[in-house]
Amino acid sequence: MIVVTGDVWVAPENVDKLREHLRRLIEATRREEGCLAYSFGEDVLEPGLLRISERWLNWQSLDAHGKSAHVAAWRQQLKETGGVRREVVGYDAGQGRAL
Amino acid sequence: MIVVTGDVWVAPENVDKLREHLRRLIEATRREEGCLAYSFGEDVLEPGLLRISERWLNWQSLDAHGKSAHVAAWRQQLKETGGVRREVVGYDAGQGRAL
Repeated sequence: MIVVTGDVWVAPENVDKLREHLRRLIEATRREEGCLAYSFGEDVLEPGLLRISERWLNWQSLDAHGKSAHVAAWRQQLKETGGVRREVVGYDAGQGRAL
Repeated sequence: MIVVTGDVWVAPENVDKLREHLRRLIEATRREEGCLAYSFGEDVLEPGLLRISERWLNWQSLDAHGKSAHVAAWRQQLKETGGVRREVVGYDAGQGRAL
């Protein structure tokens, strides 16, 4: 399994504007083969900092996601909204342990 | 390295009430030995669903975190606020790949 965590910084006043675009991205992504979890949360202490959390069956499904039309549309939207910095990292994950 | 993702569901109207407690928890946790990242984001589509994202140096540091006074205080606060469901999982993580 692959676990992805990431951060995207946008202007706080743009989060509401982006919400419907995020909804389209998230709903389309959750229907992708190999997508086990996919969410965005707005940081509780830093408005405009979006925390990404994903789990994928394997790298192939994650790679296909990266080439999907809905990701391209989202990235374009981010660019048009002046979408700022982005740091996203995927990790090969072993057996999970409930905490 | 250990990557943790998790969800905590609270009543949406309690998120603002919990924010200062979250600030104390997050600030204290980020000062812990072995804590590489620690954040809570409110889901952009589901108000009241808090998305947790963490990275730790190893299981030892994560175990110590679980026994810390600030986590105990946070759990108590969650209980008092009628804090609801909680699902948090840690994964042994391999080399990261920037996406």
